[in-house]
Amino acid sequence: TSSGVFLLQMGWGDLGAFGEPSKETPNLDQMAAEGMLFLDFYTASPLCSPSRAALLTGRLPVRNGFYTTNGHARNAYTPQDIVGGIPDSELLLPELLKKAGYVNKIIGKWHLGHRPQFHPLRHGFDEWFGSPNCHFGPYDNRERPNIPVYRDWEMIGRYYEDFKIDLKTGEANLTQLYLQEALDFISKQQASQQPFFLYWAIDATHAPVYASKQFLGTSQRGLYGDAVREIDDSVGKILSHLRQLGISENTLVFFTSDNGPALISAPRQGGSNGPFLCGKQTTFEGGMREPAIAWWPGHVPAGGVSHQLGTVMDLFSTSLSLAGLQPPSDRQIDGIDLLPVILQGKLIDRPIFYYRGNELMAVRAGLYKAHYWTWSNSWEEHSKGIDFCPGQSVSGVTTHTQEEHTYLPLLFHLGRDPGEKFPLSFASEEYQRAVERISGLVQQHKATLVPGQPQLNVCDQAVMNWSPPGCEKLGKCLKAPESDPKKCSWPH
Amino acid sequence: TSSGVFLLQMGWGDLGAFGEPSKETPNLDQMAAEGMLFLDFYTASPLCSPSRAALLTGRLPVRNGFYTTNGHARNAYTPQDIVGGIPDSELLLPELLKKAGYVNKIIGKWHLGHRPQFHPLRHGFDEWFGSPNCHFGPYDNRERPNIPVYRDWEMIGRYYEDFKIDLKTGEANLTQLYLQEALDFISKQQASQQPFFLYWAIDATHAPVYASKQFLGTSQRGLYGDAVREIDDSVGKILSHLRQLGISENTLVFFTSDNGPALISAPRQGGSNGPFLCGKQTTFEGGMREPAIAWWPGHVPAGGVSHQLGTVMDLFSTSLSLAGLQPPSDRQIDGIDLLPVILQGKLIDRPIFYYRGNELMAVRAGLYKAHYWTWSNSWEEHSKGIDFCPGQSVSGVTTHTQEEHTYLPLLFHLGRDPGEKFPLSFASEEYQRAVERISGLVQQHKATLVPGQPQLNVCDQAVMNWSPPGCEKLGKCLKAPESDPKKCSWPH
Repeated sequence: TSSGVFLLQMGWGDLGAFGEPSKETPNLDQMAAEGMLFLDFYTASPLCSPSRAALLTGRLPVRNGFYTTNGHARNAYTPQDIVGGIPDSELLLPELLKKAGYVNKIIGKWHLGHRPQFHPLRHGFDEWFGSPNCHFGPYDNRERPNIPVYRDWEMIGRYYEDFKIDLKTGEANLTQLYLQEALDFISKQQASQQPFFLYWAIDATHAPVYASKQFLGTSQRGLYGDAVREIDDSVGKILSHLRQLGISENTLVFFTSDNGPALISAPRQGGSNGPFLCGKQTTFEGGMREPAIAWWPGHVPAGGVSHQLGTVMDLFSTSLSLAGLQPPSDRQIDGIDLLPVILQGKLIDRPIFYYRGNELMAVRAGLYKAHYWTWSNSWEEHSKGIDFCPGQSVSGVTTHTQEEHTYLPLLFHLGRDPGEKFPLSFASEEYQRAVERISGLVQQHKATLVPGQPQLNVCDQAVMNWSPPGCEKLGKCLKAPESDPKKCSWPH
Repeated sequence: TSSGVFLLQMGWGDLGAFGEPSKETPNLDQMAAEGMLFLDFYTASPLCSPSRAALLTGRLPVRNGFYTTNGHARNAYTPQDIVGGIPDSELLLPELLKKAGYVNKIIGKWHLGHRPQFHPLRHGFDEWFGSPNCHFGPYDNRERPNIPVYRDWEMIGRYYEDFKIDLKTGEANLTQLYLQEALDFISKQQASQQPFFLYWAIDATHAPVYASKQFLGTSQRGLYGDAVREIDDSVGKILSHLRQLGISENTLVFFTSDNGPALISAPRQGGSNGPFLCGKQTTFEGGMREPAIAWWPGHVPAGGVSHQLGTVMDLFSTSLSLAGLQPPSDRQIDGIDLLPVILQGKLIDRPIFYYRGNELMAVRAGLYKAHYWTWSNSWEEHSKGIDFCPGQSVSGVTTHTQEEHTYLPLLFHLGRDPGEKFPLSFASEEYQRAVERISGLVQQHKATLVPGQPQLNVCDQAVMNWSPPGCEKLGKCLKAPESDPKKCSWPH
């Protein structure tokens, strides 16, 4: 049985099936109608790189090293001047799946480090079409090189130079390229009768948002909606392709997102947090709860809905289980096998840990969520117009200073109050019962936690994508400046 | 062809089909899957009485008299000391349907005046089971009598005395009574082969919120969710009943709400505004946009979705059309016939007018909404803890003083920004184009507007439900105090 993961950058509220009022995602809604909707599914970090590292390792970023100690409770990621990346000591899902004969492909953004030792083909993937970093730019190739696009081991061009993105109109045909890559890969694997793992991690809904000409202007939601429509259309085509090749019943497909909507870029470049609080960068529900759909015709009951607390790390354990493999036993794995949930409708009791960098900010158990720390961003950043919670403000909750609540956590009941607006009274019996239970889970978690070596502390302009492998064939090698390693600055 | 209207007090975001994250409304979701979802459907006022008057007259409250001139832009309704009610000069939907041989029943809250001349059976209904006012209480029957429950012309008891509501546990079996009334009425009409109009205007989701014992504690969402579950279950039973009797293909059923969620009572007694701004009492989307579903097996395409701008007043015109009747031609009717939308998927260009009392606060045309006035509530009320926008605050938009924007309306694009957080730049071409168009609509609207005599200005404790018809048979007549008419106070 093969597996596919669609990892998009979308908010919980961006799909029609999740209540987006323009309801422009017929294919994703159909995927949900044919599959199972996960309404309580989380990412592992409110930021991209750590989430992706967590998905592929089955482990929290604080274990796999995708965090920083440069500041307290800071989100960090992998811009092109980052020195670190995925440690060799981590075992990635494709590395493990190889043992079961899988062919593994990543299409889109890798984001686990761009230096040679971090290359996805050194960590279990057999094929790659996409980029190591975000498609920011255009850069000038002197202060900062444009981000390369790789095919497998080597770069085949750079964004803005060879892979155009028109920042004015939002036009780019990249989603079509990513779609074609996916269809071709699936056809090839079907022809060779090999099980496969396809990680479709495309980037059209991440700023700078883009869509192909045929989708521009087609959405009620503006450019962001155009990008969503194109992705929706592509997902429909990939699922149809699996059907037409007769392998849909042998392929579990999971759709989810790596962080909440980038409300800071809303409305043109950011999605919707639905009824939740704040977005990307925060550990409120809007930053961490994700749209999620499992699809596997003939296996997953059509129209299913699950309230299983799930995380992107579960895709690691679930994919291994599907391949008949055991997760590594020499390390702590945070993901759980969701097959009993998907196939038998079971509910597995487990907490959700909400981290921001090196700090456990909040914990969910059942319908209760306890905040041990609250923070949106600093007053200083906020005064510059950086707002992770536009139009939302809950006194004592969306704080602009880091507030510790360790001894008296803020508690919310996410069933009655999914928007985290009404903290429970500290004096209530309900509060005391719930916090007692969650405190036990926190103690247990912290007692056994072995943090990994932090990978996101050091930045150096010399390590940027000056001369990626293959650049010489294209005449696209650039001269790196002198090495000048510094502490990376992570303001959020 | 018969028609049924379910008018509940729910927010846009309270149904699974509209993205409520607990997804506990399988019957309503199924109704949507079998019918047509209206995603851009509005009430006629952010408060109950005026909305209901608008639904039944097809006319804006400012025309049918359901507004006040006691203060600028104040919402008003019909508490039991109100002197006014629905004027005889208004033609109500059931009055008109009678001419086509319809039998009309109202189950639940009437809310168009409780004095004898306003009785629903004097305005076209043939049967009534329910109450003239909200089920507030318990009252002491000295300062304020408990609200009566009527069967047809006469009262058969009072809330809290004969129809129990346990405010502590939230238990009341009223929804079950309302359900049984609906099933019996439908059976009777089917047996007598008469077309019918059933207006099921029940009140379990209005504070004080209640549910039957069998539903208490069954929801993730607390008592409010229990009430929603019971209503959802009841809707399912009514639709099944229509099917079993073989008349589902002759009955158009419409589900919607009279105002946005009462966020002021959240989380225990109020619903969800989904991704929208503020709730009941405001003319932001949260106060006015409603969940809406049209169901008519064999006629309405299953799984349909419409972006038609619709209003509760359209149910007037649509029901008349269904009965082969023309709307009255001697007065302005604001509702439009939605049958071309429902049956042929047409989109009819028309604006939405957002009134608060006697003031046109905002206008929507296409995806643009222009605010001519903004107000949530006064600082004075807000300082008492009355908050129509808990956790939400948009600078210059959710204002606590009444702000006029007549000469430079605040403009939002509801596709890109359904939450009304990002006003368009006044300098943009897009702004100028959209405002020019909307200004024309406003001019046209105001030029032809003939306001009705305001019905909600005068309150008098002598007119309360002291001795409703039938009270003598029950020994439940109470002595009214001296008449002491006063201006009603409408703070919001």
